[in-house]
Amino acid sequence: MPGYTPDREAHLRRLRRIEGQVRGLQRMVTDDVYCIDVLTQVSAATRALQSFALELLSEHMSSCVVDAARNDSDGGEAKIQEASAAIARLVRS
Amino acid sequence: MPGYTPDREAHLRRLRRIEGQVRGLQRMVTDDVYCIDVLTQVSAATRALQSFALELLSEHMSSCVVDAARNDSDGGEAKIQEASAAIARLVRS
Amino acid sequence: MPGYTPDREAHLRRLRRIEGQVRGLQRMVTDDVYCIDVLTQVSAATRALQSFALELLSEHMSSCVVDAARNDSDGGEAKIQEASAAIARLVRS
Amino acid sequence: MPGYTPDREAHLRRLRRIEGQVRGLQRMVTDDVYCIDVLTQVSAATRALQSFALELLSEHMSSCVVDAARNDSDGGEAKIQEASAAIARLVRS
Repeated sequence: MPGYTPDREAHLRRLRRIEGQVRGLQRMVTDDVYCIDVLTQVSAATRALQSFALELLSEHMSSCVVDAARNDSDGGEAKIQEASAAIARLVRS
Repeated sequence: MPGYTPDREAHLRRLRRIEGQVRGLQRMVTDDVYCIDVLTQVSAATRALQSFALELLSEHMSSCVVDAARNDSDGGEAKIQEASAAIARLVRS
Repeated sequence: MPGYTPDREAHLRRLRRIEGQVRGLQRMVTDDVYCIDVLTQVSAATRALQSFALELLSEHMSSCVVDAARNDSDGGEAKIQEASAAIARLVRS
Repeated sequence: MPGYTPDREAHLRRLRRIEGQVRGLQRMVTDDVYCIDVLTQVSAATRALQSFALELLSEHMSSCVVDAARNDSDGGEAKIQEASAAIARLVRS
């Protein structure tokens, strides 16, 4: 099946779980759940998003960055700079 | 209208927007969008969750913590400790 | 002894330890220690700074914020806003 | 001059500046500077450490990771995993 990868399915499962966490937050707000308990769930959803990002980044380096290091005319420098900028956005978010 | 607060509606609007961002991430993964562009959107969703948390925390301090400082028998210390632990979870997530 | 507090001494001890970590990083760079090992120490120093900030913030809320909630003419709102802004800087740094 | 690199000098300058920030924090604590102002400086030092880490990581990828992608028998996978773990520590610190 073209384009299908096990990774993609795993990513979609993770993102659906995160979507479920965000919908859970909406129910908590609607039900007037105690603020600190809502915050605990926000921290959990934030961590889940960051884990997803780290997984994605690791795969990107194993494939695109490695490939660029071997084949690009600049020795992969453009892809490294692009990945570094993405890492900086993650660290600062 | 009992229980209704303008804050709650604003919170729900924010969370629905974040849910939309997470669904957008699923479409990006399904459409095989370039990894770095997905990461940029993950960073945006993470920041939106953290802004929501900061807003919630600020309101919590203006209401519950202030109230506890004036009326609780421990001078609000338990609520301060609870808020501090929530802040630590945010900083570390 | 006016102005002396056990907290202050504890804070100075922590900060001297963090200063030691930063000097250790300089030695690692001078000795050409492997980059990943330097990064591990940078993460440790960053976490130590954040723990110090969380401690400071917790004390600030137990003293200044509680005090303002009881005595300030605005019910402590200005101090709450100021603390919230400091928390936002921590979360985003 | 063996071992000397412009990068190393730049790194040492950055780290000495961060050491200066941490010593400045000690003076602030000794002088009983207002807590929120100390926190602002802690956030600045934390960000400086993180920028240093991001710079180090970017250089590491441009040199070691690229080199491993071309020459290591595992196609650089071990170095990618090692870098990914370091990035995770940074994001979570």
